[in-house]
Amino acid sequence: MKTSQIPFRTLRDSPSEAIISSHQLMMRADLIRKLGNGLYTYMPFGLRAYRKLEKIIKEEIEASGAMEFKPTVIVPGDIWKESGRWETMGPQMLKAQNRQQQDMVVSPTAEEAYTAIMRQGLTSYKQLPINCYQINTKYRDEIRPRYGVMRGREFNMMDGYTLNADDESLDQSYQAYAKAYLRIFKRLGLDVITVKADTGAMGGSGSEEFMVESEIGDDTLILCKCGYAANVEKASCAKDIPVDIDGNPVKATEKSYEPISTPNVGTIDDLEKYLKCSKHQLLKTLIYKATNVCLDLSEVDCCKNLKTVTEGNIKFYPEVFVAVCIRGDLDINEAKLAGFLKASEVELATAEEDTKITGAPVGFAGPINLSNVPVIADNSVLDMHDFLVGANKADTHFVHVEYGRDFSAWKTADLRTAKAGDICPVCGKPFYTTKGNELGHIFKLGKKYTESMNVTYLDKNGKSAVPTMGCYGIGVDRVLASIIEAFHDDRGIIWPMSTAPYQVAIVPIKYSGAMKEAADKIYDELLKASVEVLLDDRDERPGVKFNDMDLIGFPVRITVGDKNLPNVEIKMRSSEQAELVPLENAAAKASEIVKTEFNKLNS
Amino acid sequence: MKTSQIPFRTLRDSPSEAIISSHQLMMRADLIRKLGNGLYTYMPFGLRAYRKLEKIIKEEIEASGAMEFKPTVIVPGDIWKESGRWETMGPQMLKAQNRQQQDMVVSPTAEEAYTAIMRQGLTSYKQLPINCYQINTKYRDEIRPRYGVMRGREFNMMDGYTLNADDESLDQSYQAYAKAYLRIFKRLGLDVITVKADTGAMGGSGSEEFMVESEIGDDTLILCKCGYAANVEKASCAKDIPVDIDGNPVKATEKSYEPISTPNVGTIDDLEKYLKCSKHQLLKTLIYKATNVCLDLSEVDCCKNLKTVTEGNIKFYPEVFVAVCIRGDLDINEAKLAGFLKASEVELATAEEDTKITGAPVGFAGPINLSNVPVIADNSVLDMHDFLVGANKADTHFVHVEYGRDFSAWKTADLRTAKAGDICPVCGKPFYTTKGNELGHIFKLGKKYTESMNVTYLDKNGKSAVPTMGCYGIGVDRVLASIIEAFHDDRGIIWPMSTAPYQVAIVPIKYSGAMKEAADKIYDELLKASVEVLLDDRDERPGVKFNDMDLIGFPVRITVGDKNLPNVEIKMRSSEQAELVPLENAAAKASEIVKTEFNKLNS
Repeated sequence: MKTSQIPFRTLRDSPSEAIISSHQLMMRADLIRKLGNGLYTYMPFGLRAYRKLEKIIKEEIEASGAMEFKPTVIVPGDIWKESGRWETMGPQMLKAQNRQQQDMVVSPTAEEAYTAIMRQGLTSYKQLPINCYQINTKYRDEIRPRYGVMRGREFNMMDGYTLNADDESLDQSYQAYAKAYLRIFKRLGLDVITVKADTGAMGGSGSEEFMVESEIGDDTLILCKCGYAANVEKASCAKDIPVDIDGNPVKATEKSYEPISTPNVGTIDDLEKYLKCSKHQLLKTLIYKATNVCLDLSEVDCCKNLKTVTEGNIKFYPEVFVAVCIRGDLDINEAKLAGFLKASEVELATAEEDTKITGAPVGFAGPINLSNVPVIADNSVLDMHDFLVGANKADTHFVHVEYGRDFSAWKTADLRTAKAGDICPVCGKPFYTTKGNELGHIFKLGKKYTESMNVTYLDKNGKSAVPTMGCYGIGVDRVLASIIEAFHDDRGIIWPMSTAPYQVAIVPIKYSGAMKEAADKIYDELLKASVEVLLDDRDERPGVKFNDMDLIGFPVRITVGDKNLPNVEIKMRSSEQAELVPLENAAAKASEIVKTEFNKLNS
Repeated sequence: MKTSQIPFRTLRDSPSEAIISSHQLMMRADLIRKLGNGLYTYMPFGLRAYRKLEKIIKEEIEASGAMEFKPTVIVPGDIWKESGRWETMGPQMLKAQNRQQQDMVVSPTAEEAYTAIMRQGLTSYKQLPINCYQINTKYRDEIRPRYGVMRGREFNMMDGYTLNADDESLDQSYQAYAKAYLRIFKRLGLDVITVKADTGAMGGSGSEEFMVESEIGDDTLILCKCGYAANVEKASCAKDIPVDIDGNPVKATEKSYEPISTPNVGTIDDLEKYLKCSKHQLLKTLIYKATNVCLDLSEVDCCKNLKTVTEGNIKFYPEVFVAVCIRGDLDINEAKLAGFLKASEVELATAEEDTKITGAPVGFAGPINLSNVPVIADNSVLDMHDFLVGANKADTHFVHVEYGRDFSAWKTADLRTAKAGDICPVCGKPFYTTKGNELGHIFKLGKKYTESMNVTYLDKNGKSAVPTMGCYGIGVDRVLASIIEAFHDDRGIIWPMSTAPYQVAIVPIKYSGAMKEAADKIYDELLKASVEVLLDDRDERPGVKFNDMDLIGFPVRITVGDKNLPNVEIKMRSSEQAELVPLENAAAKASEIVKTEFNKLNS
């Protein structure tokens, strides 16, 4: 291909809204153009890289046993109502009504579609497992789309799904996807960390994320040298015994709890100073508002009259307030809390809501005599002794509180946010952390969808059974952006050979005379050798052409200048060294480099 | 691939709603499954055929000079408002509001997106032409989706667009697409007819459709042996002189027009009988309601107070009534009328609306003294003499009417529906007709979008200029269904080699012992020879396997039975003849057949 045939124009400056390197470089190199907020068009150079990435994903996913299928992007709202996610998906799902006033959905994911499609033909255990994937358009109405295609509203996802007869079969499918993912990221040149992940509102029994370390990562990874790796939303740590201000374990008290005056002292930090005690002796109580709670609260007295909604055969509470207790030095992880409540969202109650529930200003909430909301305690509370809690009264706390004696939570759970220095539950050493971006996800869903959507088959004994299910996703655009995050310098992108829009760029200093002849010769030879080659035939100054080729980031550049002829210069984008090579050998040399680079990635 | 790895189940009967062969066979062979009204999922076998088709289209379109780009499927409503099509596209456009209450569109086509994207980088004539295409999801909210993927709501379209500096360049782009289309259809084994087409509400100066003859075709094609071919929406015919009941040309009259009583005689057929005259002496006047009329009506007195709406820099009339006159034996072509009015839709007025305008019951409308709506006459009226028209009064017509003397239309135009027997404007011979389905379309749009969306560039003289534009589409799903319409028999599909999901199917009578060994051997040899081969390893009766393979329609079948071993049977799906071949030669023979079939299509 010749540059004159490709519609592109590079930019010296990136738009001000582009604050991460991949977004800046994709815009400057004209790989993408913005069409709307969170909506990006792939331009020819960008799309070539995208298609290569897509092909690598397809090859590896198919090699692992999945067959491609292609549901529609627009699907009937009915299947979402059947699964119970019509409401619980929340406003990130883009809905539309067709001309018959039927509800339609622009697919944010395809568990419902897959289930609705595959149940049509399913009768016998002989048909299981069913393993299909697609790479298709998805849309999520992100409140604040950002970072270009890293977090766009419309995006492309590889989403695979399996229906399995039993947990063993599901585990095989799950492991096959995991292996395919690792091969994919290897071929892309990306180092990924596999971390345990939260199964959250999706339900399910197991989940791992494939993360790439990144300063601009959305996720915090909790890591240990022993190999333990988990998303902060999932990471659990070994329990640590509360200590007093002198570092001695806090002992149980036999004193009854009693109120003390804490005028205007509501925060944990202020209480610590005011009382000159350890935060391990302070209980934090926070009031949360949870949306679309699927956890069964029917046994909780104060929830007996809460409004419920039934969708398909899923019953949920549109809005629930809960009090959550945790040791004073720790933070509640909202993802863990949402997962525990099976809620689509949790957020701190407003001051007004808080006061309405506790009867006290914010900062004075406590679990004793709090009977109008369910009380949930983090496991850390179980080890606390002789501690302070809010008294649900302005400027007042209770001291000498003991868990189990003075109050009990409705439920206890792991709700704390693990952090650097916390103790690894596997080896007992301290955690360290890093930031990461999620590129892929594998998920044992269990029977959430197959049960709610009434999928059955006849098992070996002729009895009706419900299959179990897995889902597996890779964010294609996000992977592409992550490759650029990982491989770039001040001058532009440095594509790995596997996803470069073109493998070799030929830049004649001027595209005329002997230089044109030489450039054309190398071009033809490379085409014959099936190397993907771009010839910069534009009538531009050499500096402009060099800058553009470096910005777009083709891995190999062959410069044809009359000073060097009959030699030409070959230079890797990733290196500062150039090499003079006789014109006759240039194509062979470039082919060799391409092959070597591929071998490194595929080895 | 082995059948046991592919999720499919064939159906003995097709769903009752499937009334055309391709829809029936695609459902029975499990190529597609229904997800909603007009929404079909491609299953693995169907998707393999689809992907091959897509690849052929991509190869040929790219060979013709287009680069692939990829806009989003969901686009901002703003660009549609800018072009003026937000309203005029009508209810077939699926709209949604995002969480910020911004209007979004599920793309039914991408002229707006292409224009909005390409204008971003356009500064100089040196960048033109810009020629990009995509194959991507489209959605049109058809009132009555039917025929499976032939007319679904969500569908996949190859849509290419060019921006050109001038008409000559546009013509080159247009011709390049036309040539690519012909190569595509050749490789698919489809005979297409290129017909002149209506440019309709799209505006533009030229348009051709690529049609395949089909009993279930949506379009009527007007053909002449001289090579003239046009869609009925576009076909014009040579003028024919009106004759009286004896076959003599009707002469002009000098009599003044006068009313006659025609009690309850309102239709042309009844008038012909009642007056014992030729239909050539009767003028038909119909009242139409037109929606979103972009034609400028400001010079028409009765339209001066009509409501107008301005969108972008397009002004249109949301609703206009017009009277349309045509010779009694002819029919008005609504597509031509809509094109003339630049309207998104035209339909006959209701009886009530008709009467409100004419003051008379339906059947008695006429152009004389009709001043509250614009009168438009088909060109046929210009040649009529001494004719009858409705008097806008119950049971009354006027006779001895002369055009130009007794009334004049506001405008005259070609509005008649050409039909078999009409005279070819090129050679003077009579037309014949056939039914066809549109597979592709090429279109010179002109400056409709570039002007309304303010696209400019600096021309060679440094002056600001507006580029002209072309658009080019192929309905991918529809082409796939058309291949099946063209190639099937009572037993199922008969895929051409170029789009077969697999090229060769191996059917062992039983997949065990010597038969398994032989089948595996051929399978391995074919895989090595890069033949796409499917091995039916299911534990089913031979009849079931034969029926399934015939239904899905793989071009070559190799049957391995112990009676024939060490020979195996090779049979083409398209032939009743089978051939016994030694096991050793089977793979080579099958490869040879595959190659031969490809050569036929690619020659």
